Amino acid sequence: MKDNIVISKATIDRLPLYFRTLKQVEEEGVIIISSEELGRRIGITPEQIRKDFASFGEFGKKGVGYFVRELLRNVGEILGLHRNWNIAIVGVGHLGWALANYINFEGLGCNLQAIFDIAPHIVGRQIKDIVVDHFDNLEAVIKERHIHIGVITVPNSQAQAVVDRLTAAGIKGIWNFATIKVHVPEGTCLVNEDLSMGLSSVSYYLTRQLPEK
Amino acid sequence: MKDNIVISKATIDRLPLYFRTLKQVEEEGVIIISSEELGRRIGITPEQIRKDFASFGEFGKKGVGYFVRELLRNVGEILGLHRNWNIAIVGVGHLGWALANYINFEGLGCNLQAIFDIAPHIVGRQIKDIVVDHFDNLEAVIKERHIHIGVITVPNSQAQAVVDRLTAAGIKGIWNFATIKVHVPEGTCLVNEDLSMGLSSVSYYLTRQLPEK
Repeated sequence: MKDNIVISKATIDRLPLYFRTLKQVEEEGVIIISSEELGRRIGITPEQIRKDFASFGEFGKKGVGYFVRELLRNVGEILGLHRNWNIAIVGVGHLGWALANYINFEGLGCNLQAIFDIAPHIVGRQIKDIVVDHFDNLEAVIKERHIHIGVITVPNSQAQAVVDRLTAAGIKGIWNFATIKVHVPEGTCLVNEDLSMGLSSVSYYLTRQLPEK
Repeated sequence: MKDNIVISKATIDRLPLYFRTLKQVEEEGVIIISSEELGRRIGITPEQIRKDFASFGEFGKKGVGYFVRELLRNVGEILGLHRNWNIAIVGVGHLGWALANYINFEGLGCNLQAIFDIAPHIVGRQIKDIVVDHFDNLEAVIKERHIHIGVITVPNSQAQAVVDRLTAAGIKGIWNFATIKVHVPEGTCLVNEDLSMGLSSVSYYLTRQLPEK
């Protein structure tokens, strides 16, 4: 991997998509893939793909394609997925519960290590192999289990207070599902998730498919 | 809006992000926004923004900026959000339940009109103002309530069968949260959601923030 590479935000945003698609391709047993075929699968032009990949190194063979395994490892490394981040989910409503069960954390090189809630009927329950901890024990558990990333799935009204507690406890990565703006201290990474964005994409394509009368 | 505009897939993928950000900006009372300020908020270069917006019309005033309300309306129109799509969610596990409650369908010009499940303790329950219907009534309800888009939140093992039933019943837009590949007939729009992609982004930024020892 190149040191000190500069990658545009737009390229960074495509990296998870590349990673996911290359992983599927690898599982299908493909050894080499062309930018045309990769582009067809993702819906990005081959030119864009070649430009993106060129910005972080040489993984292709002109006229042949990209070596899938090598490229996948390198995209994963650029994404930092070899770092084995430890994750904590805060808030076991339906969304927190769904994420805990739904996301393939291991496939992303991450470990779900802690889940927090305050409700007496939730604390102590087991989700996957994690026993839900009380939010009061946040600081101790974060320290003990070396948590790096906090996932915010609490109601909007509590999101900022939870983010404040997490960052005060040393958490440097926040993945926020609350639909309000939260603020983090400088040096903390904040990624806001908006589940509704996919629906706009469906709307876009459907609009082209079903012309207005 | 221009007729027959051709927009690249990469631009299309940014439209929901533009829509969401412009909506926030409008709610803050901003009248005009520069491509620099919009770029700073989204994390895209001003050049990319100007290029994207130029591809679907003229909403800016050189040296001044973009008129927020006009631009928002136009991005919304390109996304087809004025079409008032009717939505059905199929599968009331934690994820389906979370989506039904979490997504601001109205804010996207969509109406959640039906929710389906097969479990006796779920069918008949009310989520928001929708009574959960039995999956056996799928075809009748889709027809009665003019459903356009189906949201797939069933277990992977049932996803393809559900997609087949929906498309056979005339649904042309599928928003799929199952983590397996599903196939749709030609002319049907399929958008696969992968909730884990946001986590890769957190990993990317955290890797830059916390260098390896």
